[in-house]
Amino acid sequence: MSDSNSQREEILEPESKKIKIDHENGNGVTDTQLKLKDFILERILNNSTNRKSVCVLGKFKDKSGVALVHLEKNAFKEEDLDSVGYFSADTELKTFFQNDIYGNYECFPPSSVNGVKTTIIYPATEKHIAKYSQQQSHIVLETPELYDKLTLPHLEKEQFNLQWVYNILEGKSEQDRVVLDNKCEKEGFVLLPDLKWDGITKETLYLLAIIRQRGIKSLRDLDESHLPLLRRIRDEGKKKILEKYGVPGSQLRIYLHYQPSFYHLHVHFTYLKHEAPGIYAEKSHLLETVIDNIEMIGNYYKKATLPFTIREMDNIFNIYETNGHVQRIKQENIELIDK
Amino acid sequence: MSDSNSQREEILEPESKKIKIDHENGNGVTDTQLKLKDFILERILNNSTNRKSVCVLGKFKDKSGVALVHLEKNAFKEEDLDSVGYFSADTELKTFFQNDIYGNYECFPPSSVNGVKTTIIYPATEKHIAKYSQQQSHIVLETPELYDKLTLPHLEKEQFNLQWVYNILEGKSEQDRVVLDNKCEKEGFVLLPDLKWDGITKETLYLLAIIRQRGIKSLRDLDESHLPLLRRIRDEGKKKILEKYGVPGSQLRIYLHYQPSFYHLHVHFTYLKHEAPGIYAEKSHLLETVIDNIEMIGNYYKKATLPFTIREMDNIFNIYETNGHVQRIKQENIELIDK
Repeated sequence: MSDSNSQREEILEPESKKIKIDHENGNGVTDTQLKLKDFILERILNNSTNRKSVCVLGKFKDKSGVALVHLEKNAFKEEDLDSVGYFSADTELKTFFQNDIYGNYECFPPSSVNGVKTTIIYPATEKHIAKYSQQQSHIVLETPELYDKLTLPHLEKEQFNLQWVYNILEGKSEQDRVVLDNKCEKEGFVLLPDLKWDGITKETLYLLAIIRQRGIKSLRDLDESHLPLLRRIRDEGKKKILEKYGVPGSQLRIYLHYQPSFYHLHVHFTYLKHEAPGIYAEKSHLLETVIDNIEMIGNYYKKATLPFTIREMDNIFNIYETNGHVQRIKQENIELIDK
Repeated sequence: MSDSNSQREEILEPESKKIKIDHENGNGVTDTQLKLKDFILERILNNSTNRKSVCVLGKFKDKSGVALVHLEKNAFKEEDLDSVGYFSADTELKTFFQNDIYGNYECFPPSSVNGVKTTIIYPATEKHIAKYSQQQSHIVLETPELYDKLTLPHLEKEQFNLQWVYNILEGKSEQDRVVLDNKCEKEGFVLLPDLKWDGITKETLYLLAIIRQRGIKSLRDLDESHLPLLRRIRDEGKKKILEKYGVPGSQLRIYLHYQPSFYHLHVHFTYLKHEAPGIYAEKSHLLETVIDNIEMIGNYYKKATLPFTIREMDNIFNIYETNGHVQRIKQENIELIDK
């Protein structure tokens, strides 16, 4: 239901669709390699002006099947900020305006320091195209009644596979990655680096606390009986992260997702400066606020209306749409609205 | 206290610090212009690997005073995704690896399509350096007691200037920008594009609803008496944005900041897909959740502990630090922790 643990979800290709293609592994440029100049653009699937990335759909000349090309500008490497890189004589500078002490320009650095991360998926399937397309998203207001009537039956029907979670809890997988293991059956949890984190770079610090108790699916299931568990995760998690990574609790963003990407209660710990995916207000609930809410009203999460975001491609969208709680964007509308 | 309306806050230069410098206005490249090749780097102030921007401090050869250079990779322009731009024969492609249908590369497009937005501030002051430096940020837990004891006295002492807000409400400024004007003294508000928005591009849609009633500083002041006002902002704001911009309410993120950037109640409306600044869970409170909380507990915002983010350079940080609620990061710690 979310991108948070999307590394766990592989896009599986049916064997029959795997077509042998004529490029080589390795670093050599060969005649049979895919060439960007042979790419014929059909459609822009996604253009992130924030991250400076774009994903396009098209074909390669004289080749069958469609291809996805994903381009993302490289971040600045500190070693290139010198007189042979960005500040070299080869870097052209075009002036837009000058006003007092402020100057606005565009510069054109040597192309060798200004590379673009490029991913080509060829041949691409419908699933790839859906994954890389900008999706129409909507906020749905989930009252307790709608949770019981629509969301819960959907979760029970989908029966997400939690075997990988149980493997971690039972010590069958990823034991070398575990940072903290509180074995208490009722209030215990395992803390380990999230798959998106390399476990080293402080700037992108991201850990996950997974509770030992089974059957607590999400925020919706929490009440005053879980306060000791939640406080323990907060306090022991903070303490361990300070000890091991030197990051104090006041610089941690500690939160739960709603909806989560898997329905076994877990808590995210990220470095406050890190703009991790899924930290927006419509998706993330700070653990401190969750605890405070339950302290004020024991059954807060049984009474509250919880907003959550769904994409039109999500199965649960159809359920909410059929019941009249959200409307799909019509294609004509999109064309009308867009510049 | 925040970056949300930072365009309203000019960094004012004392006249004595304004040094006449020897570059020209306009588009011409002249001999007296600042040249990037003359820039001598001293220190990297900020490197955003997400937005692909970097801000550096240094000097220009043979010139006195320090300069800031801010570089940000340009977003992809759709018109450059063609056979003379990114997909031209001049674009080199370096292979990292090939695995089945997935290929990972770095490409080097012609420098003319791969510009870098460049801002030079010269001579730069301490204030500029502080503004562009990556700040140490912390989350503080503001209980109602701490609000009364520390935050509120601070706000009253700072006496933020709200004249620009009153000018809008009284029709003295920005009247051509107003999208909706409900003149009811108690439940009325003005809706207008935020300064960060061009008023046209749907992808970055961002409007602000500013209430007419004076004296409601923030979330903290809200109770059940404000429910009609809050519902009106939600309902009329959504309706108007659908009519005028074609964006349905389910695709709007409607929220309040805590702490806000100015202490006269206002509500943000952004397009759900737009990653606007300040939409993170530690800063933004969805209007729907605010209404729901007050419906559950009339004085919710008088009872709740509200987390908020402060930077070590903010005045209020000193107040919370002095009272022992947050600790400054020691420079030695930073060096120890960073790789």
